[in-house]
Parts: sequence; structure tokens; C-alpha cells
Amino acid sequence: MFLRDRWYVAALSKELTQKPLGRTICGEPIVFYRKTDGSPVALEDRCCHRQTKLSLGTIEGDELRCRYHGLKFNAQGRLIEIPSQKKIPSDAGVKCYPTLEDQNYIHIFIGDSDKALTTPHYTHHELSLEGWTSMQAQFNAECSWRLLVDNLMDFTHVPWSHKNTIGAAGLEATDEQTTERDNPDHVRLSRILRDIDPAPAHIKAFGYEGKVDRWQIVDFTPPSFMALTVGVAKAGTGMTNAAGDNLMLDRRTLHIATPETDSKTHYFWTTMHEKGALTEDQEKLIYEQSVETFHEDLVILEAQQERYTDTIPRVDLAADSALFQVRRVLDRLIENQSDHQPVP
Amino acid sequence: MFLRDRWYVAALSKELTQKPLGRTICGEPIVFYRKTDGSPVALEDRCCHRQTKLSLGTIEGDELRCRYHGLKFNAQGRLIEIPSQKKIPSDAGVKCYPTLEDQNYIHIFIGDSDKALTTPHYTHHELSLEGWTSMQAQFNAECSWRLLVDNLMDFTHVPWSHKNTIGAAGLEATDEQTTERDNPDHVRLSRILRDIDPAPAHIKAFGYEGKVDRWQIVDFTPPSFMALTVGVAKAGTGMTNAAGDNLMLDRRTLHIATPETDSKTHYFWTTMHEKGALTEDQEKLIYEQSVETFHEDLVILEAQQERYTDTIPRVDLAADSALFQVRRVLDRLIENQSDHQPVP
Amino acid sequence: MFLRDRWYVAALSKELTQKPLGRTICGEPIVFYRKTDGSPVALEDRCCHRQTKLSLGTIEGDELRCRYHGLKFNAQGRLIEIPSQKKIPSDAGVKCYPTLEDQNYIHIFIGDSDKALTTPHYTHHELSLEGWTSMQAQFNAECSWRLLVDNLMDFTHVPWSHKNTIGAAGLEATDEQTTERDNPDHVRLSRILRDIDPAPAHIKAFGYEGKVDRWQIVDFTPPSFMALTVGVAKAGTGMTNAAGDNLMLDRRTLHIATPETDSKTHYFWTTMHEKGALTEDQEKLIYEQSVETFHEDLVILEAQQERYTDTIPRVDLAADSALFQVRRVLDRLIENQSDHQPVP
Repeated sequence: MFLRDRWYVAALSKELTQKPLGRTICGEPIVFYRKTDGSPVALEDRCCHRQTKLSLGTIEGDELRCRYHGLKFNAQGRLIEIPSQKKIPSDAGVKCYPTLEDQNYIHIFIGDSDKALTTPHYTHHELSLEGWTSMQAQFNAECSWRLLVDNLMDFTHVPWSHKNTIGAAGLEATDEQTTERDNPDHVRLSRILRDIDPAPAHIKAFGYEGKVDRWQIVDFTPPSFMALTVGVAKAGTGMTNAAGDNLMLDRRTLHIATPETDSKTHYFWTTMHEKGALTEDQEKLIYEQSVETFHEDLVILEAQQERYTDTIPRVDLAADSALFQVRRVLDRLIENQSDHQPVP
Repeated sequence: MFLRDRWYVAALSKELTQKPLGRTICGEPIVFYRKTDGSPVALEDRCCHRQTKLSLGTIEGDELRCRYHGLKFNAQGRLIEIPSQKKIPSDAGVKCYPTLEDQNYIHIFIGDSDKALTTPHYTHHELSLEGWTSMQAQFNAECSWRLLVDNLMDFTHVPWSHKNTIGAAGLEATDEQTTERDNPDHVRLSRILRDIDPAPAHIKAFGYEGKVDRWQIVDFTPPSFMALTVGVAKAGTGMTNAAGDNLMLDRRTLHIATPETDSKTHYFWTTMHEKGALTEDQEKLIYEQSVETFHEDLVILEAQQERYTDTIPRVDLAADSALFQVRRVLDRLIENQSDHQPVP
Repeated sequence: MFLRDRWYVAALSKELTQKPLGRTICGEPIVFYRKTDGSPVALEDRCCHRQTKLSLGTIEGDELRCRYHGLKFNAQGRLIEIPSQKKIPSDAGVKCYPTLEDQNYIHIFIGDSDKALTTPHYTHHELSLEGWTSMQAQFNAECSWRLLVDNLMDFTHVPWSHKNTIGAAGLEATDEQTTERDNPDHVRLSRILRDIDPAPAHIKAFGYEGKVDRWQIVDFTPPSFMALTVGVAKAGTGMTNAAGDNLMLDRRTLHIATPETDSKTHYFWTTMHEKGALTEDQEKLIYEQSVETFHEDLVILEAQQERYTDTIPRVDLAADSALFQVRRVLDRLIENQSDHQPVP
């Protein structure tokens, strides 16, 4: 089940060109391209004539021509040319999806298009921080988007899943873990760890082997945006107030889990840090270690997808309170949404 | 759904030897081989004893021996030897299919064998034209046979699907397109195009870049035989009456779409032209371009198979009238056939 | 359907180390490892917290730690540590399976664990024969365990399936084939072949091309243990009493077909012969020929799995009497077992 009447991130800005890109979002096959003015277009990826993929076609100016019989659709999905005949059935065409581009992402509205204008898309304020720089990546996760959200709303897996990268002894502590709600749909989970061992990835990047303080804050916004603030400082040097040489890592990271199907997820990721805070080598290393960290997660999530069943007894942990709040938010929103889902 | 009580093309003549060939036709697993006199045999590809594939076995003279326990079947499928015992159950054996060989194809009768003798198989008169020569090919199409038939009963896709091969601007015109029926099961679609650009494939083959006339005629015969006559002549030189240097291409082509399963099709193709009408280089080039043309179709058809659904609104075009007549012929014939389909 | 409340062979002894081994037995996902004292452990391969595979985890002493959140389970499957919290739910954990190690195999009890102690596991007396030596192998068979049992309870396939290895003309004879029952669950099939041609594998191993006598005896014990005694001697030299230069081959072989799922089988094999009875070259050749023989069977069984259906008429042979007795034993035992199968 997907949460409908929502804006989803469908692609990185750089993925969209004047060549058609076929991609399934929330189970719906969609073709994306850019108009000549650069604005993004998203249409149903299935011709209304003989149903082959429009993503096999070609872009002509702002329009898309089907590769089978040359039927041409405008950027609103309206059928505007049938090469073999003059008469065009009124209202013929394919579904057009509202789109917008913001902060290097292409967003698409899945659900009742009439609601798109009055539904805000997710904007990440820190993606626009002046003087900050960002890195992006993208993964195909062979698991439900719900399992990926679970994974990101929970920090206690870090020492175990990621012991070769960002994990470290002491990271299991939840003494200073809190869960907050500033509105019924948001969930914030925060955690501070004092005087613990540095993680392998951080030793590699900063060459500092002494004790550290670390902090991890994640903000969940439906349908599946997780904004993280993480930091590492020398132990006892002020935690989130640390600065200068004492502050080693200070990052803002946005994780996005866009459903492809019930069991596949488009995973988008942007991480930001202050310009000049890292050397070029450190940046490269942080990026590589992050990618490795993702793959450590994916192995576990794909195994979870394979085993997952509702029919066995389950143990829930206190540390999971944030993810349970998120599960309840999503369950409530999905349950309350209108029933009519268009047949894909 | 398949059309039963019909002769289907199952293989090229050259595919059949004294080694067993396993192939599924209309969902039925079948083993083919040749007897010592060269005549083709088709038996159920499943031993009546322990059900392994008889196509793993060996041919002994006119008979087939199973590789599991050595049970021997004659060319009528009758069990004639059980190595471990003398008594052979009467009437034991596997289904035998009527077969015949004609015009370099092996035909098999699918349905009630009693009707085979009184049911004519498809013969293509032009395959026997004196002084003509032919080329053959064979493809596995990952789509329903119905989609392949649709594709061949429609010429207006040519300029779009095949723009790098046999397509050209102007080929979308249907002014001189007609559909005819000379009996309730036959459909003929014909089209003439005057004074249009030559196609890339034809420029390559004939080195002529001036305007051309082209004609395309296709005759559909159930279950799935499509006989094409196509030609290219210098514009204004007499169209189908063109001759000599003015007539560049004059071909007869037989397309056969034999169902393998509901979503896979054996695609057989023979093309013919008058001996001497083409140089050796031209023949080679025509063959290569044809194979490329097929692959252009298969990409589109396999995407169509992936997307096809009955649940969305559809736009039908005037140019599709022939394929709709064919669909109605096939729907009627399938609906009227007896219900009892043997369990595969 | 599987036969429950039984001991199954799950692995070769040498496969089990202090690294987790994930393997599905009778449709149940299981993780195996060894404790520090060497004894085998088998737990449900699915964490009771978030359901990822425990086989991704690490062994710490006698315990298994999940790779996702570091939950630790003892060798009885009891949850004994939750890194992020002190309180551990009473009785939390994963299913623990009874195991034992015997004769170089790891056995696991599938079913109601309370019955494990009072249910004997299969022991093969000849695996402990003094002065004998053994070779082991292991295969993944893409077929039902029932088809593999069928295959081993029937010798008449040998001349046809294995004509390049252990088959030979004359091996089809069943004159001296008998089936015996010494208790309702056991089936013994024996066969003697007199004065027949030697098999290719035996000519290669022993360099003797004269006529031979051969004997084959197989004992079936549920759920799926087949113990074979096979021999080859020079024709007329005493058959099973042959000795010295007249006795060429005298082997005891244990075949084990452990269900992985309904359509996949773990196939374990141990073959034994008297020390010194074979040269090193002969041993190597016998091993290689045996592996080739298995692959000859697997090709046929996997084709059988693909074709198998209950809906077509079947021919049963007199030579199959032993396998039909085994089928009836298994059907009866499965039918009589309690219904409650835990959801996998």
C-alpha cells in the first residue's frame, strides 16, 4: 500500500534530459522528460493506442512521440497528432502527473492531481544553506519502502550493521535518546553519545583515535523523507557546540525512500557539509564510506524483505519507539486516504 | 487462448534431424524428430511412465527411446518396448501429433487429430514460384502471438518503428489503403504510397536517393499466417507495373506467428524475390536489414506485452481497421471452437 | 508435503564452523553453527525483532548476535541480550531445533521438538565398518525429494540414464529382482545380474573387459535414507562371495534426500569401500564417475520436475514395485502425522 495524494521524489535533476526516462513510482509506470524550457514532464508510460511504452519514443520539442505509430502527446498528455489520420478523438491522451523541480530533485504528485497545487512538496531548508556543499547518490533497494523507513528511524542498529564503517562500541546507548512530535505527522528522534570510541570511518577520515562525542537527529516527514543531522566532536569539547579543531564532522543528510513497487524502493540521498570543513580527500572518503554504509544496510533489508511475515510472534524494543510512531503515522494516513486507486 | 484444430508451423525443415528437438507449441510440450525415410514425427514430450522429457532420449531408427528407463515409443507414440518386462500394457503410449512437411516448414496439427486430414494446412503459392529464391529466419518473441499478428496487419507503424531501416517520411499516409475480405476468415490490407522519400535500407541497397513509389499488401489466414507483397519503384514509373531499372524491390514475404505459450511466440519468416533481381551484396544487405527490422518490432512488442491491460481506456485508429477485422475473425473462431482443451 | 517429527541430515560435518550457515530444510529457514565445544546448533534464521536473517550475524562463543541490532541469542534460541536496553522480555527468542552429529553428518529434528529424544536418528552401521574408508559429496537437486527417492528405489534406469558411466547392456533384467519388508516402514530392493557386459566406468577403473556379475541392494528408511550395497565381480566367480582378484568392486553407499522446499532437495552422498581394495587412481576415478552419474540423474529428474502432473494417464511397471511400496510408506506416514505445521 502506498500513501497517495503526495509529492514524491522521482529522480535526481541530473537524470532528466530530453531523452525519455521510464521509471515506476508507487506501482505506476511513468515516462519523464524535460521540455525545451527545462521544466520536467511526467506522463503515463503506456500509449493510449496500443499500450507499448512511451519511454521507447522520442522527444520533439516539448512533445513526446510514440515509437510504435508515431502518435504525439503534448506535455499535458493530450494526444495531439495521429500521423495516419486527421481526426483526433477529443480528450484522448495519457495520464499527466504534476511535477516540479526543487533542490536538485524532480518531484511528482501521485494520487488525485487536483490536490497537487494545495499539497506542499517536501523542501529541505538545509539543502539551501549558504556556504554549504552537497553530494548525492541513488540506490535501488530490493525491499519495501516501509522497511527502509524503519531502518532510518532507528539508530541502535548502527554499531552492529555498520561496525566496519560508522559503527563503534558505545553507540548502543539510548540513555539520551528522545522522540518528539511537533505535529501529528512529524516524528523527531534524537540521540547523544558521550565519550565513546571513534568509528573506523571517522578514524580514517580525521586521523583522530581519541574518545569522541556523537549526535544523531532524524526528522521524519511523510510520505518518506528522513532528514538527519549528525556530528562527531572530540569528547567533552561541547558536543553540538563544538567548533574549530574539536568539531570533526557536522553533516546534514536527506534520505528519501520512494516506493517503486511494494517490494522495491528508489533510495535517494543527499549529504551536506560546510564548504571548507573537509579536505578534498576527506570528502571523497566520507562519500565512499557512506556508499559502503548503504550497502551494509541493503544486505540486511533485502534479507528482511525475504523473511518478513506477519504470522510469527515479534519482540519490540524500547529503542524502536520512534519507528513505531512513524509506522502509526503512515498506517493512519494510508487508512484515511480515499479508496479509489487507479488501476496501474 | 489458442485456436485449436489447426495446422501450425512448428519448425524450419532444417531444424529437424534424427536428434530429438523439444519445443512447446500452443502450450503443449512436444518432441520432434525425423524417421529414417525423412518424414517428421511429433510426440508428447513427456514419458507416460515417469514423465521426464522424451526429448532427452535417443532416436533408434524410426523410434524414440526414453533416457530414464529405456521405454521405446514408435512414431505413432505407441509404447512398444519396456526393457525390464515383456508385457506391454495395451494402448499405452504418448500423444502423437499429425505432422507434415511442406515448403521448408514442419507443420503440426494442434487439437483433435481426427480433424487433421480434412483440415488443409497453409500453403503459400509464391513459395513455389519458379525462378524465385528465398531466405529464412526465426525469432523468439517474448509476447503473445496476438500482438505479433496485430503488428503485421498494420503498416502505419513502419515510419516510426523502423525509421532507421525500412521507414521513411510519407509512409504514414493511408489515402490509398484498403481492407478486403474474400471469405469470412481472410483479411487483405493493401496500401500504395506515391512519390515519397526512400527508406534508409533501400538507399543502402540500391544507391537511389530520388523519390519512390512503394506498395505493401498483406493477406491474413488463420491461425496466424501473414503473406506480404512489398515493392519499391522509382516514383511515377508504373507502381506495381514497374519493371527493369525502375523496379528496385519486389518481394513476397511470409510471416508466421506460432504460439509457444500465452506470452511467447515462435516467429518464422521466409522472404522471396526473383532470382537475379538482386546482387549477392544486395541480398545480404536486405537480409541483414530485415533482421534489424524484426528486432525493432520485438523491442516494441515486448514492451507492449509488459504493459498490456484491458482496464484502461483505449484509442483505436482508422488505420487499424484491418487488424480489428483480424481480431474479430480470431475471437469468433476461438469462441466457436469446442471447449475441451487437453490439460497440458 | 514433508514428513515431520523426523531427524533429517542438514549438512556435512565439515560444513559447520563457527561462522553461521543459512540453509532451508523442509521449507523452514534455519541458521547452523558450532558451539565452542564443537556441538552443532540450529536456530530459526529470522530474528524475532525485525526478522532479518540471523545467518548474516556473528557467532560470539556459543551465542549468535544479529547483524541488525546486535540482539544476542543463546544456543537454545533464547534472547539473552538487547544492547539498547536492560529489560529482556521473558521467553523471547527464536525457535531452536534439536541437532546431533553422527557419522560425519549434522542431523536436525524437524517437527515437534519434544519428540526428538524419543525418535531415533538414522545411523548407518556400515559407515563405522572397521578398515573401511569413505568419500563424500553433496548436490543441489532442483526437484522434489520424492522424485529423488523414486530414482534411487529403482535400478532399471541404470542402463539408460547411465550408459556412459555405470550402465551396461543386460542391466535391464529383473529376473532376479526382489522386494522385501522387514518392518512396515522399511523397503529392500535387491537385484543380481549374471554374466553381463562390464560398464564403461568399470572398464576404465579395472581394465577388465570380460563378462561380469553385478549386484545391487538398496534399503529405504524414512524419511529419505537409501543405503546401497553394490558389487562387480568376474562372471561366475561367486557373485557376492567373490573375493581376491575376482572381486572388482564392493561398495556401500548412503544416499540422503533432504527436502529443501517442495521442489528443491539437498542431496548428500557417502560411499565406502574396504581400505586397500582400490588403488589411489581407482578411488579418484570411482569418485569422478560417481559425480558424473549424479549429474546424469539430475538432468532427468529436473526435466521430470518440470513436466510432472497428476492429470495425465500413467503407465506403471513391474520393476517399480519397490518404489511404489516406498511411496505408500511415505504417503501413509505423512497422512498420519499431526496437522499442525508451523507457518514457515
